[in-house]
Amino acid sequence: MKRVDLNCDMGESFGAYTLGSDEELMEYVTSVNIACGFHAGDAATMRRTVTRALDKGAALGAHPGLQDLAGFGRRRMDITPQEAYDLVVYQIGALWGFIRAEGGAMQHVKPHGELYNMAAYQPKLAEAVAEAVYAVDPGLMLFGLAGSELIAAGERAGLRTASEVFSDRTYQVDGSLTSRRLPDALITNDDEAVLQVIRMIDEGKVLSQQGIDVSIRADTVCIHGDGEHAAAFAKKIHSALQQSGIRLQAAGAAVPRVNGQA
Amino acid sequence: MKRVDLNCDMGESFGAYTLGSDEELMEYVTSVNIACGFHAGDAATMRRTVTRALDKGAALGAHPGLQDLAGFGRRRMDITPQEAYDLVVYQIGALWGFIRAEGGAMQHVKPHGELYNMAAYQPKLAEAVAEAVYAVDPGLMLFGLAGSELIAAGERAGLRTASEVFSDRTYQVDGSLTSRRLPDALITNDDEAVLQVIRMIDEGKVLSQQGIDVSIRADTVCIHGDGEHAAAFAKKIHSALQQSGIRLQAAGAAVPRVNGQA
Amino acid sequence: MKRVDLNCDMGESFGAYTLGSDEELMEYVTSVNIACGFHAGDAATMRRTVTRALDKGAALGAHPGLQDLAGFGRRRMDITPQEAYDLVVYQIGALWGFIRAEGGAMQHVKPHGELYNMAAYQPKLAEAVAEAVYAVDPGLMLFGLAGSELIAAGERAGLRTASEVFSDRTYQVDGSLTSRRLPDALITNDDEAVLQVIRMIDEGKVLSQQGIDVSIRADTVCIHGDGEHAAAFAKKIHSALQQSGIRLQAAGAAVPRVNGQA
Amino acid sequence: MKRVDLNCDMGESFGAYTLGSDEELMEYVTSVNIACGFHAGDAATMRRTVTRALDKGAALGAHPGLQDLAGFGRRRMDITPQEAYDLVVYQIGALWGFIRAEGGAMQHVKPHGELYNMAAYQPKLAEAVAEAVYAVDPGLMLFGLAGSELIAAGERAGLRTASEVFSDRTYQVDGSLTSRRLPDALITNDDEAVLQVIRMIDEGKVLSQQGIDVSIRADTVCIHGDGEHAAAFAKKIHSALQQSGIRLQAAGAAVPRVNGQA
Repeated sequence: MKRVDLNCDMGESFGAYTLGSDEELMEYVTSVNIACGFHAGDAATMRRTVTRALDKGAALGAHPGLQDLAGFGRRRMDITPQEAYDLVVYQIGALWGFIRAEGGAMQHVKPHGELYNMAAYQPKLAEAVAEAVYAVDPGLMLFGLAGSELIAAGERAGLRTASEVFSDRTYQVDGSLTSRRLPDALITNDDEAVLQVIRMIDEGKVLSQQGIDVSIRADTVCIHGDGEHAAAFAKKIHSALQQSGIRLQAAGAAVPRVNGQA
Repeated sequence: MKRVDLNCDMGESFGAYTLGSDEELMEYVTSVNIACGFHAGDAATMRRTVTRALDKGAALGAHPGLQDLAGFGRRRMDITPQEAYDLVVYQIGALWGFIRAEGGAMQHVKPHGELYNMAAYQPKLAEAVAEAVYAVDPGLMLFGLAGSELIAAGERAGLRTASEVFSDRTYQVDGSLTSRRLPDALITNDDEAVLQVIRMIDEGKVLSQQGIDVSIRADTVCIHGDGEHAAAFAKKIHSALQQSGIRLQAAGAAVPRVNGQA
Repeated sequence: MKRVDLNCDMGESFGAYTLGSDEELMEYVTSVNIACGFHAGDAATMRRTVTRALDKGAALGAHPGLQDLAGFGRRRMDITPQEAYDLVVYQIGALWGFIRAEGGAMQHVKPHGELYNMAAYQPKLAEAVAEAVYAVDPGLMLFGLAGSELIAAGERAGLRTASEVFSDRTYQVDGSLTSRRLPDALITNDDEAVLQVIRMIDEGKVLSQQGIDVSIRADTVCIHGDGEHAAAFAKKIHSALQQSGIRLQAAGAAVPRVNGQA
Repeated sequence: MKRVDLNCDMGESFGAYTLGSDEELMEYVTSVNIACGFHAGDAATMRRTVTRALDKGAALGAHPGLQDLAGFGRRRMDITPQEAYDLVVYQIGALWGFIRAEGGAMQHVKPHGELYNMAAYQPKLAEAVAEAVYAVDPGLMLFGLAGSELIAAGERAGLRTASEVFSDRTYQVDGSLTSRRLPDALITNDDEAVLQVIRMIDEGKVLSQQGIDVSIRADTVCIHGDGEHAAAFAKKIHSALQQSGIRLQAAGAAVPRVNGQA
């Protein structure tokens, strides 16, 4: 039986500012990526998000970002690999405090926004992020763009990795995401988005914008947490995957025993 | 044999800004309190301070402060107990990331500046801080002002505590520190400061400004890390304590075995 | 003909975070208090808010707050009068940049949140705020709680002042607002709120919680910008005031000429 | 008679953190660039720096930087031209508050660090910075790298500009600064540095690393404010320029009357 993880960025509120539909979305996802206070999130939000995810049985992950609250971690900053290492260690640790306090366990780390993008394409930054995760806890899983430098660096570092795919983004023939600057970057039809995901999981393939099938590994699917119909889409893909006989399961969960074997 | 811990606030540099004489002082202290990025410190400084302390064999502690970099955590802020709990959990966690990455262990938590002061006198804030420390790790030791609400709260929470005394501050007949607003708050003569500390350790007493001896428990002595002659004073008190036959040992260290007994 | 100003806090969005219903409320107010980046707001939001207010003909004011984005400037911080002076000068200046760039003029300054509260009751802080406003521009008007130290300090400094009243708060016999900690602090019935305001303007009186009428000066009425029915209430009070024959006019506007006289 | 301006970055302290030798350097410079709280500086430091510069008769300028206190504004951030415009308007305004409060006048704006670098080579960013300065006050002078896009944008916008040269940096045959990543980027010999500056002013030429003379316009010379011998070098170049018969004068100062004419 095929399986996949549904992950969503959460805990992005800050002080008096509320963002996202965490409560509704928590019903449909199997892993949550929790903002750690650099690009979004604050201590109270982290505590509440950890508590809520534990209640719902979702697996917990750190979502470290660039130190740019004003830009939500989405503006490229030329940080050194050492700076990337340091900010990842700090943020994993900060979230760990709340998870430990609530008696839970951390499953994974997924870099946020532009840190995710830079780590997907810059080998040294990818290596620094992977080493930071490994240094804090070699048992953590690293989430990264399928086929990216980050996944490669995670594997070299000795980490388990989860290759992430996007339901609402189109792909290029080299397996990369179509740039958001191009007109056909987004899949706005929900049915198409769902079908793309199911095919990635079932066949390990995605039809690129060049009309050629590309191999892709889909361990975890990113569900967007913002926007008005985020919860509606989460519900839709959740039920479509189940109806397709795909098991929804946190990426780091042990493979279920089949016939008494692991 | 009497023993005492010498602790010092470190890791207070931030970005391009350097503060303190950490490297020199590291030679004389047995415990270091490391700023965690709220009132001072940043991720790179935390990593470097952890590494340096591990090299020197000093015990490591988190030094969580109010979220007020501009005021260095020294301005009173009316935070709720829940806010205090959250910021302590976050900051312990952040430091834990670096300690874990370097293969070390965290010994203690000592609140910084105005958080330390508020937790010394406000029972609910003291309780929140103690519960935060306990929630993250019941094995952590809590440093607080000798005789304070924070020490009482730590003991109620089930934490080991270390009662902190100050070498360069005078005391009142109720065991409290003389307010810095009063002219006789500080002991500026180094010899007097050293003698006060030795007496606190040897006799468990300090002569109050009212001329009456007051009982005081001195598990750990705070050495100031800033100021021009910080290192000179650290060296002086370090050697005076040794000459007085007082063992310098991190507060959380196990009592050394004597005659084969713990 | 009686006149009054309706003011509202605006420009409180920050980066990816949106707050308030500025666009709707802008239809009903005569003065806007624009957050300046310390407790809320950012440079882009300030520019957009200035532009929008100029389009609508609302008078512009700076809304300086404590440097506590995480607490929205609502947590008491023990700042010195000098610190209050500095942060008010800085924030007025920052907003002035945008107003100047858009070709507008600044009418007033109204401290935000806990800075407003502290300046209402602490004479030295009130004096520092008033002196900061005067130092930047003696032509600015100072908004403060009716009957407060801030209004007194503004008058001593030589500033024009506007005494502010609240529609949805109850008053004590000494003219102060009922503490939010008490159960009867808020007026939740919109009609009562409107009647209280009209009476303050018409008769210069408010019925205190002790059942005794208290004199009060109402130059400007604070309309809350957050909450779901903020715009509905703004519309209601706007039309009720007009129907009562009260002229709605920015506090700093010149008295309209009557029979050819100023 | 030839003239030149000596400018220096000042007011870079923050809270408990002190940086630079502002007091000593203030004796030798004719223009100061004051940090405005984004990459460095805070409200109290801005006030003190304005006061000190007015006392010494140095001309005052805003030194707006990227919003990256942790990186001192030296890390490239991919900001949009609109974001550059907004942060420049905000920071000029903030400094204006203090200058206005002290009764002074602002002479110029010089972007800091990576904002300076980006505005030197990216035409759209340069244009946004120039337009921001012009929008706040068309009478302000814009400081930028000699021969840069920023100087060109300033002139197109209708601003007076001052072309800046560096005493301690080497130049390439295209007039650009040698990258700091290359071994020969810096001139470490003070006498050579002084001679390079004098030749730039006297002859309008600098010998490039390729051994070919390049034309350069030197309206203002940047004196570094940090480092141990900053004050010694400032004193040296100040006196060498005077001895060479070059008048030291703020860039924005009116041309002195000669023979009774302006």
